[in-house]
Amino acid sequence: MNPGTPAATELPRTSTSTRARTMRAVVKAKAGPGAEIREVPVPSAGVGEVLLRVLRAGVCGTDLHIHQWDRWSQARMNPPVTLGHEFVGEVVEIGTGVTGLAMGDRVACESHVVCGTCAACRSGHAHLCVNTRILGVDIDGGFAEYVAVPAVNAWRAPANVPLEVAAVMEPCGNAVHTAFAGPLSGCSIAVTGCGPIGLFAIGVARAAGAARVIASDVSPYRLDLARRMQADVVIDAARESFVDRVHELTGGQGVDGVLEMSGNPKAVRDALAALRNGGRLSMLGLFQETFELDWNRLVIFKGVTVQGIIGRRMYETWVQLDRLLTSGRLDLRPAITHVMPMERFDEAIELLAGGKAGKVVLVPWGASA
Amino acid sequence: MNPGTPAATELPRTSTSTRARTMRAVVKAKAGPGAEIREVPVPSAGVGEVLLRVLRAGVCGTDLHIHQWDRWSQARMNPPVTLGHEFVGEVVEIGTGVTGLAMGDRVACESHVVCGTCAACRSGHAHLCVNTRILGVDIDGGFAEYVAVPAVNAWRAPANVPLEVAAVMEPCGNAVHTAFAGPLSGCSIAVTGCGPIGLFAIGVARAAGAARVIASDVSPYRLDLARRMQADVVIDAARESFVDRVHELTGGQGVDGVLEMSGNPKAVRDALAALRNGGRLSMLGLFQETFELDWNRLVIFKGVTVQGIIGRRMYETWVQLDRLLTSGRLDLRPAITHVMPMERFDEAIELLAGGKAGKVVLVPWGASA
Amino acid sequence: MNPGTPAATELPRTSTSTRARTMRAVVKAKAGPGAEIREVPVPSAGVGEVLLRVLRAGVCGTDLHIHQWDRWSQARMNPPVTLGHEFVGEVVEIGTGVTGLAMGDRVACESHVVCGTCAACRSGHAHLCVNTRILGVDIDGGFAEYVAVPAVNAWRAPANVPLEVAAVMEPCGNAVHTAFAGPLSGCSIAVTGCGPIGLFAIGVARAAGAARVIASDVSPYRLDLARRMQADVVIDAARESFVDRVHELTGGQGVDGVLEMSGNPKAVRDALAALRNGGRLSMLGLFQETFELDWNRLVIFKGVTVQGIIGRRMYETWVQLDRLLTSGRLDLRPAITHVMPMERFDEAIELLAGGKAGKVVLVPWGASA
Amino acid sequence: MNPGTPAATELPRTSTSTRARTMRAVVKAKAGPGAEIREVPVPSAGVGEVLLRVLRAGVCGTDLHIHQWDRWSQARMNPPVTLGHEFVGEVVEIGTGVTGLAMGDRVACESHVVCGTCAACRSGHAHLCVNTRILGVDIDGGFAEYVAVPAVNAWRAPANVPLEVAAVMEPCGNAVHTAFAGPLSGCSIAVTGCGPIGLFAIGVARAAGAARVIASDVSPYRLDLARRMQADVVIDAARESFVDRVHELTGGQGVDGVLEMSGNPKAVRDALAALRNGGRLSMLGLFQETFELDWNRLVIFKGVTVQGIIGRRMYETWVQLDRLLTSGRLDLRPAITHVMPMERFDEAIELLAGGKAGKVVLVPWGASA
Repeated sequence: MNPGTPAATELPRTSTSTRARTMRAVVKAKAGPGAEIREVPVPSAGVGEVLLRVLRAGVCGTDLHIHQWDRWSQARMNPPVTLGHEFVGEVVEIGTGVTGLAMGDRVACESHVVCGTCAACRSGHAHLCVNTRILGVDIDGGFAEYVAVPAVNAWRAPANVPLEVAAVMEPCGNAVHTAFAGPLSGCSIAVTGCGPIGLFAIGVARAAGAARVIASDVSPYRLDLARRMQADVVIDAARESFVDRVHELTGGQGVDGVLEMSGNPKAVRDALAALRNGGRLSMLGLFQETFELDWNRLVIFKGVTVQGIIGRRMYETWVQLDRLLTSGRLDLRPAITHVMPMERFDEAIELLAGGKAGKVVLVPWGASA
Repeated sequence: MNPGTPAATELPRTSTSTRARTMRAVVKAKAGPGAEIREVPVPSAGVGEVLLRVLRAGVCGTDLHIHQWDRWSQARMNPPVTLGHEFVGEVVEIGTGVTGLAMGDRVACESHVVCGTCAACRSGHAHLCVNTRILGVDIDGGFAEYVAVPAVNAWRAPANVPLEVAAVMEPCGNAVHTAFAGPLSGCSIAVTGCGPIGLFAIGVARAAGAARVIASDVSPYRLDLARRMQADVVIDAARESFVDRVHELTGGQGVDGVLEMSGNPKAVRDALAALRNGGRLSMLGLFQETFELDWNRLVIFKGVTVQGIIGRRMYETWVQLDRLLTSGRLDLRPAITHVMPMERFDEAIELLAGGKAGKVVLVPWGASA
Repeated sequence: MNPGTPAATELPRTSTSTRARTMRAVVKAKAGPGAEIREVPVPSAGVGEVLLRVLRAGVCGTDLHIHQWDRWSQARMNPPVTLGHEFVGEVVEIGTGVTGLAMGDRVACESHVVCGTCAACRSGHAHLCVNTRILGVDIDGGFAEYVAVPAVNAWRAPANVPLEVAAVMEPCGNAVHTAFAGPLSGCSIAVTGCGPIGLFAIGVARAAGAARVIASDVSPYRLDLARRMQADVVIDAARESFVDRVHELTGGQGVDGVLEMSGNPKAVRDALAALRNGGRLSMLGLFQETFELDWNRLVIFKGVTVQGIIGRRMYETWVQLDRLLTSGRLDLRPAITHVMPMERFDEAIELLAGGKAGKVVLVPWGASA
Repeated sequence: MNPGTPAATELPRTSTSTRARTMRAVVKAKAGPGAEIREVPVPSAGVGEVLLRVLRAGVCGTDLHIHQWDRWSQARMNPPVTLGHEFVGEVVEIGTGVTGLAMGDRVACESHVVCGTCAACRSGHAHLCVNTRILGVDIDGGFAEYVAVPAVNAWRAPANVPLEVAAVMEPCGNAVHTAFAGPLSGCSIAVTGCGPIGLFAIGVARAAGAARVIASDVSPYRLDLARRMQADVVIDAARESFVDRVHELTGGQGVDGVLEMSGNPKAVRDALAALRNGGRLSMLGLFQETFELDWNRLVIFKGVTVQGIIGRRMYETWVQLDRLLTSGRLDLRPAITHVMPMERFDEAIELLAGGKAGKVVLVPWGASA
C-alpha cells in the first residue's frame, strides 16, 4: 500500500458502552394518517456505515405527505419507519470498512442510498439508481436521536455554517442540482414556486452568477421570503401575468432558464411561454395529476430543453453546494423560518400545511439548542 | 486587405441576356386546397443573393399540408407563393456583395432565411430566429425552374452524391439536427416514426456510431424501408408493444435516446417509458393537438431530457451532414422511393397522402433526368 | 414578407452633406517604430457597413507592439493603416443591405472582420475564421474621428454603462470568452496576469458566480487594481510562491480553473501545478517565445484541459458581456485608470510601456469629454 | 427494505477448502531489472472484494518499463509485487459486503483502486483520485493464477467476446476514454502512434462514428495492423509528412481531433499543426522528457483544446466500451497478435521490446487455452 493512502478501518470504533439502548424517534408506525413519537432501539453502524447523533433535522413537504398518508405514501411506504431525510449529525460510531471519516465529524447526509451496481450507478448517474432506498421513507431516517447511514452518504458540513443550515443541505442540494442543470452565469433565471427549495434556488442562482433572478408564487408570505433571499424581481402570479411580466422584464425575449418548483401545471405552461427560444426548463416540483401541453408551440417551435430533475448528483452537487456555502456567497438563513424541538413535530407539520413557514428545522431530544 | 482574403464581389456576375423572362413553377395561388403549375417571372439575385437553376427538389409533408390547406397553412401562408423548400440547384447569377460562391456551383439550400440581428441569431441559434422566413412557405421556393436565395443559405453539395440525394439535404439536416442533439456514439437509439425524416435519421444514427438503432412505425411499407436503411431492429407498433420490445432488447434498461418523428402522442409516452433513466427524447415530429403526460413518472423520476428540435443548426448541422455524406458512410438512396417530373406534382402529393412513398423527388422542366 | 420582419434597407441613409471630407486619425504611416496623427479622408459606409463617429477608444497592448514595430507587427502589418480596434461610436451613415441598426445608435464593435464562408465560420466558430481581418491592424480602425465597420460587427452598447466602459467591451470580451470557456459557478478561479484583460477577467469571474477569485501578478500597482476589481485574494508572485499559496487556500486541492493572461512561461507551469486534477487552463496571453513543459506530470497525469483562446465568440460572448454589464453586476471602471484626448496618443503609449496604467481610454477630437 | 433490492452479502461465499494454498505468479521480486515466476500464497477476498481465477491477462508497455526497471518504476514501485493490470477472470470467492456479483461470473477489471473520498472521487472523477493504487504496480495484480480485487472494479465481460478480448478491456478502455473525450460522430480523427492502444483507438473511433480515421506511425509492421483495424488512411511518418498529408486529405482544413498515443514530442507538434482551428488534441501517450511548443501558433491562435487523459472514467468508459463490444461494431482481434502461456512471460517482454507485436495476451497456468 502506498504511504499516504488511508488505511481501511478493520474494526468498528465506538463507545457503545456509554450509550443508551433506546432512543426517541418520530415513527410512521402504521398505515394511515399521523406519526408517533416512540421509544425505539438505537441502531448501530453496519459494514460501511456510520452512526450519527442527530443535531438538527429539516421537515420536508414529503414528510407532510407521509403524515397525511396520501396516495404516494400508501403505495411506497412500509411502516414502521422512522421519518426524516434531511439532517446533520455527529459521527459517534464507525462501521467496518469505512475510511475518510472520524469520530466527532459533523456531517450532513445524502438521503438516497443507492445500489452502486445498476447501469445508472455505473454511468455516473447514481441519483437515478433503479434500486434507490430513501432514508426516512424506505429505511429508518433522522427524526431520532441517532441514525445509521452509509459512510459514503455522509458529507462533512462546512465549518462556517450554523447547524440549521447544515441540516438542510439535502433539500438545498435539490435546488443546486436543478439550478446547475443548465447555464447560470450571466443568465436571467426564473424560479416558479417559492417553497423552501424554491427559496434556496433563488439564493443558489444568485450566488452562482445569474444576472437576474425572478421569483414567482401566489403567496405574499412566500414572496416576502423570496425578496429576503434576494430575488431581483418577485411576481405575484395571483395578481399579475407571469408571462407578460417576464417578457416586459426581458425586452420581449424571455428568460434563459426556469427552475420549476411549484408542481403546478399552469406554472409549467407559463414557464415555457416565458422562456426564450432555446431556453431550458428544469423541473423538480411534482404534480398531483397528469397535464397537457401545446407541444408544437411551447416546446418544438421554441427549441427548448425540458429536464426532469430528481435528487442530487452524487456527489458533484454536494461539491458545488459546499463551495457556495463555504465561500459565504450563499446564505440560506432567510429561508429557515422556524427552529423548534423535535418533540413538537405535529406543530411543524401544521405550520407546513398552513403555508405559514419557509423551512422548519427540528432539534432532537438532548441536542443543544 | 490581406493577400489571400477573398475579394468582395462588387458587381453581379450573370448571363441574364440568354435567360428567358418567365418560367414554370408550382404555385400556391390562393387560399384553399390545391396548387397550380403557372408561368411566373424568373427572379433575379438581389444584394447578397444567388440565383439557382433548380436541378432536383424534394416534396415534404409540409407541402402536403399546404396542398390540403390545413389550419397551420391557413394561419401562416399568404398566397401567391411558389412552393418547395428542399432542392439542389446550379448557381447561374451572383448578386452584389456575395463571396465564396462561383457560377456553376451546385448547391443545396438551407430553407430558413433569418434576420441575423435578433437575440437567437446573435447567440449562435439562428435556427430559432424570431423573424425566420421559410423558402416555399413565406417567400418563393424551389418548385420552379429558378429560385433566388441568400448566398449564405447555399451549401455546396458533396461531389460524390447524386442529385436526388443533394436535393434532400435539407430534410436530412432535420434528422442530423435531431440525432446530434445528444450522445450517439455507442448508444442505443430508437427512431419513432419512419417517414422520410425518420428513415434518414436511422441512416444518420448508424453512420454516426450508434451501437443499435431500433425503428418503429405502424406501416409495414415504412418498416420495410427502415430495414433497407439498416435499422438493427424494426418494431411494428400496431402489432407489438414498443415499450416491452425495447425493454426486452436492452436487458430491461431502456434506450439511451429516442428520436421522435411520428407526431403521435402515444409514441411520445411510449418513448419516455422506453427511455433509460437519464436518457434523452429529441422531438421533431409535430402534433395535431395538445396532449397530456404523467410528468412525475415519465420525466421527473426518470431524470430525462426532452428537447424540442426545429430546423437545422446554421450551419453546424450542414457541416456534420456534409461529412457523413462525403465519407460514404451515410447512404440516403434507399429512402428515396420516387423520382418524377415536377409537372406531376399532384401525383407526388397523392403518393404522400396515400402513405405509399418514402421521399419523393421532383425533376423541374428542362433539368436533365 | 412577413409582417414584423424588418425591411431590408435599400438605400444608404446618411447626412453626408454636412460632414467634413477629411478627419484626424492615428496612423501607422510606414514600416518602423512610431505612429502619426494625420489628416485622412473620412470613409463611407459600403455595402453591409455602417459609418461611426468615434466617441471613445481603448488602447491595447497590441497597439504598443505596433508602435514599437515588433516582430509580429513587421510580419503582419501593411502600412499605412489607421490604428485602434477597441471603440464605441455613434451610427452616422448606414450602407446598403444593413438591417437592425438606426442612425444615432451607440455601438461598440467586434474587431474581427470574418469571411463567413470558411469552415470555421460555417461551424459557428467565426472567431477562428482563417480569413480574419482585424480593424486597426489589417484594415482602418477607430483611432480617428470616423470609422466604417461591417454592420454585423456593431453591438448596441448597454444604456447603463458610461462611454469609457462601452469603449472597452472588445477587450473585456476577451476576458469573458476566456472565463466562460469552462465552469465558473461556484468554482475557484485564478487569474494569472493583471493587465487590463486580467483585471476585467477578475470582475467577470466574480460577476459570473466564481466562489473565489485569486489574482496574481508581479506588479504591486496592478495587484492594487486587482483588489479594486474585487479579487478575493491577490498573490504577489515576485514575493511568494503562487503554487504554495493556491494549495494553502484550497486545502491542498488546487483551483478549478486558471485564466492565463500573463504570457509568461513560468506562470503557465505554475498554473498547471496549481490546478486541481481535472481542472482547466484557459490561455489568452501571448508568449515571446516557445517554452517547454513536463507534460506527463502537469497535463496527462492530472487529466487537465488546456484551451487556446482567441478573440470573442461571435456573438455569444457579446450576449454574455452585455448581460453582465446590463445587470450592473460587472463594473469595469476600477480597471480604467486613464481617460485622455486622442491627440495625446504617444503619452498613452508611454503609460502602457511604463506599466503604470490599467486600461487607457482616448477621446477623439470633437467627441464631448 | 424494498422488494427487488439486492440483499447485502453477509458472509463470504466460497469454496476455499478445495483450493490450493499457493499459486504461481509473475513477481517483481526486487529492485532491479527482470521479474520472476514464483510460488506465492493464494490471496483471499477481503471486505468488499472478490477473488478471481485469472483466465487471460494482457501485457502492457508499462510491464516492459517495470521489467526494464526504468526511472518511473524505480520511483513508484515497492517490490515484491505481483505484476499484471489487464486481465479477465472468474469469480471464485465473494467477500463481505459485496453485492451484484455471483460465483462463476466472468469479469474484466478496472486496474485503478481508488479511495472514494478525495475531491476527485467525490466529483465523479475517480480516475483522477489522488490516492490511486494500481493493480500490478502498487498492489498485487493479475499475472497469477488468482487475484483479489475490489468488487466495484469488476466488470462482467460481454458474453459475445472471446477471452483474449475480455482480457484487454482495460487498455481498450484507455482508447475509449481518449476517443470519447471529444466529438467523434461524423468527425475526421487522426491517431498518432499505432501501439496496442493506438490500434484499439482506431477501431473505437470507427465504431463510434468517425467519418474518417487516419493512423500514423513509423513502423510498417504497426501500420499494417492499423490497416487491419480498418484505418481509412495510414501515414508512414518516417517517409512522408504527416502534416502535409492530413492537409491534403482534408482540403487544407485539418482534422477535427487527434488521439495522441505515441509519446513523441514531434508527433504532438505535428498533431497540433494538423488540427483544424478549434480542434482537440487528446493526449494519452507518455513522454520520456519535457518538450517545447510554439504555443501562440499551435494552441492559442488556433483556439484548440488539449486534454490530458489518464485511466478510464469510472465507470462510464466501461459502459461505452461494453456497448461497442456487445454490438459487434468493435472488433479488437486484429490488434491481438500473440496469445501465449504466462510461463513464457520473458518471451512476451522480448516481443514487445522488439516492436514485433501488437497486443500480447498470456494464459495462466491451468487456464484452458
